[in-house]
Formats: sequence, C-alpha cells, structure tokens
Amino acid sequence: MSKSKKKLKIIPLGGLQEIGKNITAFEYGDDIVVVDCGLSFPEDEMLGIDLVIPDVSYLIKNKERVKAIVLTHGHEDHIGALPYVLRELNVPIYGTKLTLGLVKYKLEEHGLADQVHLQTVQPGQTIELGAFKIEFIRATHSIADSVCLALFTPVGIVIHTGDFKIDYTPIEGAPMDLARLAELGKKGVLLLMCDSTNVENEGYTMSERTVGDTFNEIFMNCRSRILVATFASNVHRVQQIFNAAVKFGRKVTVIGRSMINVVNVAMELGYLNVPEGVLVDMENMDKVPHDKLVIITTGSQGEPMSALTRITFSEHKKVEIVPGDTVIISASPIPGNEKLISKVINELFKKGANVIYEALADTHVSGHACQEEIKLIHCLVTPKFFMPVHGEHRHLRQHADLAIKMGMNKEDIFILDIGKVLELTADSAKINGSVTAGKVLVDGLGVGDVGNVVLRDRKHLSQDGLIVVVITIEGDTGNVVAGPDIISRGFVYVRESEDLMEQLKDIAKQAAYKCDGKNHGDWSIRKTAIREALKDCIYEKTKRKPMILPIIMEI
Amino acid sequence: MSKSKKKLKIIPLGGLQEIGKNITAFEYGDDIVVVDCGLSFPEDEMLGIDLVIPDVSYLIKNKERVKAIVLTHGHEDHIGALPYVLRELNVPIYGTKLTLGLVKYKLEEHGLADQVHLQTVQPGQTIELGAFKIEFIRATHSIADSVCLALFTPVGIVIHTGDFKIDYTPIEGAPMDLARLAELGKKGVLLLMCDSTNVENEGYTMSERTVGDTFNEIFMNCRSRILVATFASNVHRVQQIFNAAVKFGRKVTVIGRSMINVVNVAMELGYLNVPEGVLVDMENMDKVPHDKLVIITTGSQGEPMSALTRITFSEHKKVEIVPGDTVIISASPIPGNEKLISKVINELFKKGANVIYEALADTHVSGHACQEEIKLIHCLVTPKFFMPVHGEHRHLRQHADLAIKMGMNKEDIFILDIGKVLELTADSAKINGSVTAGKVLVDGLGVGDVGNVVLRDRKHLSQDGLIVVVITIEGDTGNVVAGPDIISRGFVYVRESEDLMEQLKDIAKQAAYKCDGKNHGDWSIRKTAIREALKDCIYEKTKRKPMILPIIMEI
Repeated sequence: MSKSKKKLKIIPLGGLQEIGKNITAFEYGDDIVVVDCGLSFPEDEMLGIDLVIPDVSYLIKNKERVKAIVLTHGHEDHIGALPYVLRELNVPIYGTKLTLGLVKYKLEEHGLADQVHLQTVQPGQTIELGAFKIEFIRATHSIADSVCLALFTPVGIVIHTGDFKIDYTPIEGAPMDLARLAELGKKGVLLLMCDSTNVENEGYTMSERTVGDTFNEIFMNCRSRILVATFASNVHRVQQIFNAAVKFGRKVTVIGRSMINVVNVAMELGYLNVPEGVLVDMENMDKVPHDKLVIITTGSQGEPMSALTRITFSEHKKVEIVPGDTVIISASPIPGNEKLISKVINELFKKGANVIYEALADTHVSGHACQEEIKLIHCLVTPKFFMPVHGEHRHLRQHADLAIKMGMNKEDIFILDIGKVLELTADSAKINGSVTAGKVLVDGLGVGDVGNVVLRDRKHLSQDGLIVVVITIEGDTGNVVAGPDIISRGFVYVRESEDLMEQLKDIAKQAAYKCDGKNHGDWSIRKTAIREALKDCIYEKTKRKPMILPIIMEI
Repeated sequence: MSKSKKKLKIIPLGGLQEIGKNITAFEYGDDIVVVDCGLSFPEDEMLGIDLVIPDVSYLIKNKERVKAIVLTHGHEDHIGALPYVLRELNVPIYGTKLTLGLVKYKLEEHGLADQVHLQTVQPGQTIELGAFKIEFIRATHSIADSVCLALFTPVGIVIHTGDFKIDYTPIEGAPMDLARLAELGKKGVLLLMCDSTNVENEGYTMSERTVGDTFNEIFMNCRSRILVATFASNVHRVQQIFNAAVKFGRKVTVIGRSMINVVNVAMELGYLNVPEGVLVDMENMDKVPHDKLVIITTGSQGEPMSALTRITFSEHKKVEIVPGDTVIISASPIPGNEKLISKVINELFKKGANVIYEALADTHVSGHACQEEIKLIHCLVTPKFFMPVHGEHRHLRQHADLAIKMGMNKEDIFILDIGKVLELTADSAKINGSVTAGKVLVDGLGVGDVGNVVLRDRKHLSQDGLIVVVITIEGDTGNVVAGPDIISRGFVYVRESEDLMEQLKDIAKQAAYKCDGKNHGDWSIRKTAIREALKDCIYEKTKRKPMILPIIMEI
C-alpha cells in the first residue's frame, strides 16, 4: 500500500461511554502509539472487585507495532492500569516530570520499576514515534504538569485535550497554552478530541486560586487544629493548604498513604514548595499545639479505609477528633460517594468538630472545563472533524450538540464506543470496523478471573444468603446413609428460626429419600429434586430466594 | 401526681440523625399520641433488605396508652411503616383526605383495611386526643394535602411543621397557612419542631409552578411522543403534566404500578383534575399518534424494576423507546441514586431519545424549604424551645446554627437522637432518659429476622464468594471415608482455575486426614484445621478471603 493511501486509525480502548480507564490507540501503517492507560473503579454491581482495567488484547496481539505509551497527566484514570498492561506490553512511557514521578512510584509498588523505560518530556517539546510526531502542550487541570497532545500524522494534525480546565491564574507556572492551540487551529486541525466531563455545566469553572482564598479566610479566624481532606493528586490544592499554613504560622502534618506519597514525589520533583521546618511528621505532631497545626489527609470521598474516615470513627492509631477541631472537606462527592461522605460529616459533627464542606463554603473547584471553556477550545482549534471524549454517553451527546451549535456539521462529529475504529484521511473520516475492547476485573491478585457467572453468584449470595444441604449416599445402592444436614449463612438467624430449619430438613429428607434406589449414579436428578422442593417451601414461607446448594457425598 | 407537675415528653422513634422513617411519640400523663409512621430504604450495606421500619417496641409496651397515630402527609417516609406497626398496635389514624386515601390503598395491599379506623381531618380542624388538642394547619410540600400540626398540651403549644416548603402559588388550593402560625407565635409557642432537609441550601425553593412553565415550553415545541418520569406521589406535578397535555392537545397514558395507583386515588378524591377523554389506558395507547401522546411513568430515580428503566432497556411489555421520543426526567437524584439514573439517561440517548433532565432544564423543584423559608417559620413562630427534625446530624446542626444566628440561645435548642426523651414543662426543657429505638429490617416476609450476623455473612459472601468443603467420617473410628469434596460459588471461574481447586482439595485432604483417629467426636477442631489451612493458601495465592464452610458428615 502506498503511503498516500494509508489511513490514520483512532481506536479508543476505554474512556468513552464511561468516566474512567482512559486509553486510546493511534495507528498509522505499522505504527501504534497509545495515549494514556487508566483504570476505573468498580460499579456497584461488581461485588468484591477492586479495580477495573481496559481489555488491551488488541494491543497485545499487535505488540510488535506499539511504539510507546504517551501520558497526558498522572491521575489514576489515566495511568492506573500501567502496572497491569506493562506486564504484557513492555514499551517506553512518555510523560511530563510529575506524571512520570507518580508512575515510577506506582511501578515500584508492583516491582516493575526496573523493567520499564520512562522518558520525561517538557511541555512545548515534540517527540517522534514512528509515523507520529507528538507535541506536548501545557494544559491546566486538577493535577500539576498536565498536557494536551498534538499528534502530527501523515494525514493531518489531531489534538487530544487530555483532561483540562482553563485556569488563567494557576497556582504554579503559566496558564494553558491557548496560543499554541490557536496557532495549530490556524494551520488546520484534522480532528479534535476534547474532554466532555463538565459539558452539562454552564459557564466557567472557577480558578483553583479561589479555593486558596477560602482557606485563608478559614485559617485566619481559626483558633483550633485544622484538618483538610482533599485528593492526594491535587498538588496545587495541597500547595495552597501549605501556603495558608505558612501565612498563619502553622506547622503541617501529612497523613494517609497516597497523600504522603504524592507530597514526597511532588517535593522531590519541585512541584511543591514547602519552607524548611513547616512539615512535621506524624511522630512529632503531638509536640505542636493544636492551634498551630494543620493536618492534610486523604479521605475526601469518605472511603471506608481512608485516613479521614478512620480518624473520624476513632480507628486511627495517631489522630483522634477533639471537640473544636475544624475539618475542611476540600472536594466534591464523586457520584456514588455521597452517602459515604455524609456519614463522615455527620460523625465529625457528633464528635464536636466544626465541619466545612462544599455546601457551606467554596472549598473545592472542578478540574474540568465547563461549557464556555469548551467552546473556547472549539473556537481556537476549529477542527475539520470532532470526537468528544472522556464522558458517559450523555456527556458525549451534549458535547456533540454543543459543537453543532457552534456551527459544525453533524456528519463531521463522531461519537464512538470503545473498540470502534475511526478511520481518517486528510479529508475524510468514518467509523469503520472494531477491535476487542472491554473491562477486565481485578480482584486481589486475580486479573480477569472473575466474570459474569462469579459476579452473578456473589449478587445472589448477597441478597438472600445460602443454604447448603449435604447427604451421604451409598454408591452401590443409591441409598441415603447420612443427612440431610442443612447449613445456612446470610439467610436468617438460625436460633430464632429453628422451626423453619427443621421443616426444611424434613422437606430435604423427603426429596432425598424419594430417589432412593432410583436413578442410581445420576446425582443431578436428586440434587434438582432437593433444590426445587426447598426453593418452593422457602419462597412460600419467607418470600426469599437464597442460593440452595445440594451436595451429595458418595461412599 | 398532680396535673401541674406532669411533664410533656417528646420521644422521636425515627427521623432524626437520618432521612426517613419519621415517627415521634408525644406523651403527657397516661396519653400517648404518635405523629407519622414512616419507613426508610435500606443503606448500601444492608444487603438483600427490602425496607427498614422503626423499632416501636416502646409503643407496643405502652399500647394501652396510645390514643392515635396522626399523619402530616402521605409520603412513604411518613406512612410506609403503618402496615407493619398496625399489626401490633391497633389505634385510629388521623390525617387529611389524600393522605388517608394513600394509607387505605396501602392497608388494602396488606389485607389490613378492614381492621383499621381511618379518620379524615380537614386543614384548619382541631381534634382532641386525651390530654392533647391537635390542630391541622395547611402546609405546602411535594405532595398535596400536607399539614403542619399544632399540639396544644397542658404545658404549652408545640408546632411540628411536618415536611414543607413555602409555595405562594401552589397548584391547588391556598398557600401554607402562615397567618395561623404567626397567630400561634403571638400567643406563645413552647416548642418548634421544624423540617431540616434543605437547611444547607441558601435562598428559597422555587414554586412548583415553575416546573409547569418548563413542561409548557417543552410540549409546545415537541413533535414526538413525550414520556415524563416523576415521583408517583407528587400529585401536583402529575396535574401539571396533565395540564400541559390538555393545553397542547395530547392524550395521556399512565404507566407504573404506584403511578397508576396514586392517579386513581387522587382522581377519586378530587385532587387530580383530568378532563373527560384525556386519559387513555395502556391497552388503547397505540391508537393515539405519537405526537398526540404523553406517557406519565415511574422510574425517575432509575430504580431497576421501575417502568421507565424497563422501557429504556426494552424490557417493558407495552412500550419501547423509538428514536425521536422526548423523555423528561422530572426529579432530582436522591443521594445514592445518581449512577442508576445516569445509566437510564445514557441508554435513552443511545436509543435515540431526546432526554431532558435537571442538568439541562428546570424539570424539578424540591419539596423542602431552603434557608430563607426556614427563617420565616422561625420568625413567625418565635418558639421558646427548638428541636430541628427531619435530617441527618449535619442538617440538624446547621439548623441549630441557623436558629442561633436568629437569636436563640444555644441552651434552648435540642438536637435529639432517636429514643431520647425531651421533657418539657411550661418553662423548662431538657433531655432526660431514653427508650428503645432503632431499625427493624424487613426482608421478604421476615420482619426483624435479619440482623447483624446475617448481614455480615451476606457482605462476606458478596465480596469473595464461598468455598464449601465436605467430608464424610466414620463415627466409630473418626476416619475420613469420603471426600473432601470442594464446591465454590462466587470465588473464581472453576474451569479456568482447575489447578487452584486441585491444590485446595489436597490441602483440605491433608488437614482432614491429619485428624484421623484423633479428637474423636469433636468435629470443630477438624473443621477449624481445614478452614485455617485453606484460608492461608487461598489468601497467599489470590489475596482473597472467601467464606470457607467445612461440613463434616458422620456415618
């Protein structure tokens, strides 16, 4: 195939029609470049699952062709699947300094740090990967050192915004490089891929700096210990807490594994500016008077094992809430976490703390662009084609509608699903074909060994529990020689339901003995008879449907 | 005891430090009057539980003294526990017409309608129950016919707002009777008990009428079928949908069990005004052209079994989404339901529907008062003492702070927990003692037979599943004669984990045989040995902790 006939293929393997596990493959000729490699957190129905990672079997099948993974920023939904994916796909990783600092720590935890080549790139710099030239363009987001990417391909320029907001007064460094986006827009951009997370919100996302003002106000008037819970990865937020502490003469202690880790990485790499003597470790914290201390902690989402939750419920080994403590929750609830956070807030109030959260003060701003910011990007980039990314279907649809309102043709906008292939030439784009894509569930050490059947069983067990019926049968005769024994778990208080359990035993016995001497050797018929007899009786008496597990032992 | 020395006791048995299962006992001398009798929905960790009702053992212990249950309005969290409580406490029920219409339907479903005396009261009317005179005062809320209560007691007047918002332009009837509250305030109110649900929100809750304007706008411009999902009990919302339908020449079909029920009750009692010929039943719906049809349905919270969810996922027997359908979600997500609703919205968009929800238009207003409305009530009633009700701890605390800002003394405000007793005389109030109170879990037909042990087992089973190990032992010798057999559910795909399962069998075997001939008769030692051996091996290999259930059969 002549070069002019080759097409650019863009294949999202995650991050579309969902919030989380962002990963996209860019393919031209023999070359594949992957952008981001994130994880997502389990849905409510994924009982017992720890993490969800993208199915990258397409990349593994083509592993010889994959040149690199390029990262836009260091959030879990953009880097979290690396330790799993890199085990099967050993390619170099490109990213900015803080992003790679966080990746390095992650790989160390998984014992993979030595095997992976990490290549730091500065915003403004361009790297070459096979047929692709990729420029890193400074962005602003709720983590430092995030970038947009411009992919220069033989068929044209693709701009991938990564996650962004437009913060004209960022805490550190320059604002987003809008001028460069405009310049590329002038030159002609083939395709824009743009963050859709906040597209349902009108107006602008406020600058991170506004939260600093809130901190200053609270700190100024506070005569007690202050605890601030926020996202560990929000280095600028953490910087602002340090700033307020320094301004009002307080020391700072950092608590929570991931918070300690990010603070260490960010200080080491120069992303967090902490004057000498301000940081006090947990062991020496008690030497600082309460009105001179700030504790920065994880747990802003009410996560049950997080530091703030453990502190709140008196389960932390070092810190306990005392009446008068001021606790600032510097975060919004991620959908699904509302009740967890509410529990923590309620308990903090009960313990006598003064709790300040989003409903009461401006303790948080989003990291994602609202409608007016998104419009600005469209206006500067003026792409030929557009693919909304980073959102559930509702967000992608609203984003497409916004682009149409700004003058794009509906036919030039592509809402993809993961695994779908967008094929582009210099003047055309279409969805053409698909590759394997999906979710891989991580449960403990198992990656992909829990699937629908296992989850269905967990769901069934969780609803009405379990009844095990065991009988022993003489193999020669097919006659019952022991049992049935009935054991239940998660069904009813056995002590208060002795009558019911006796009744069930009788029914199981009848069903089991009825088959004596018959169907010799075919235990499944006997098992079914027991299960059906019990099922009907239990439903009639309790309107419940526990899992019924008949077990036949043969001697 | 002379009458002058008797005290008024107020005992919340639910609805404080929680949103849901509202119920409060008012006690003076030998007389007890109960206000409301609601249920709540299970917390996330209450696996398999259908409903939660208040523990009313205190009332049952004192059943001879209970004069009546008085209802403020017909929402589930105020009437839902009646069918359970009335089985053990047969007292008359007082409420307004619509409230009792809904109660009657509920009691019929439970086969209790004939046994209970329902007494309709008009707003403005006063009833006498032992030592109490109780006046029903017109309120406005997200259900028609709601009231505040003024309890005239020998020690003074208590005002219980019930749930309310201040709607100056309600859909039906007069606004809330603020003048009467003011009059009582002038007279002197001993205690105010006031709704705290929205106390964290500044300003005012908008009038229900604003949603009607949104409906009119949408209906006016729509050339397709319209589906509107809302809360069944919001009769005024339903009225406004009917109004918009009539205005724009559409017929209306009602779908969803609880929606059909409420519409029937409300029409029968005159709370819903539907012109002849507008209502079309589901069987005849297909005869109406799509651009002349509105479907009103349940499912605004994305409840998996609701009509809208089934329609959306093509599981409804009569209605399927066709491209171009307009779907209005006329509700806010109740905390915890965000993800469920999002799933429905995403799927509706995918099916080609035009979805209009709160993020995009004013399709909903709350039924609860915001800060300025709450302040108005405090300002009119000017109580001596104050007890914030209907809220989690955070809401009660914010409400107390609001009252303090309005000039109340902290010592005159009482944040109670359920079961606590507030004791009042004409000039004093204090928390004094407590009675039994709590949650009773309803699972199928079982009321209270599922407790912590059962829930803990369900949780355990839901996380990592189950491994059952069965061996048969000869009773005389204590030797294993069959097994171990290993059965797992919800643990791993057995087919893909044959090696692991074989290994576990070996380990169970070793542990089981090791005890051969020993500890004769004491199976628990052998069970523990098996459990421990398997537990360690499984954790090492998988980092999971399934429930391990060793069963020993004796022959």
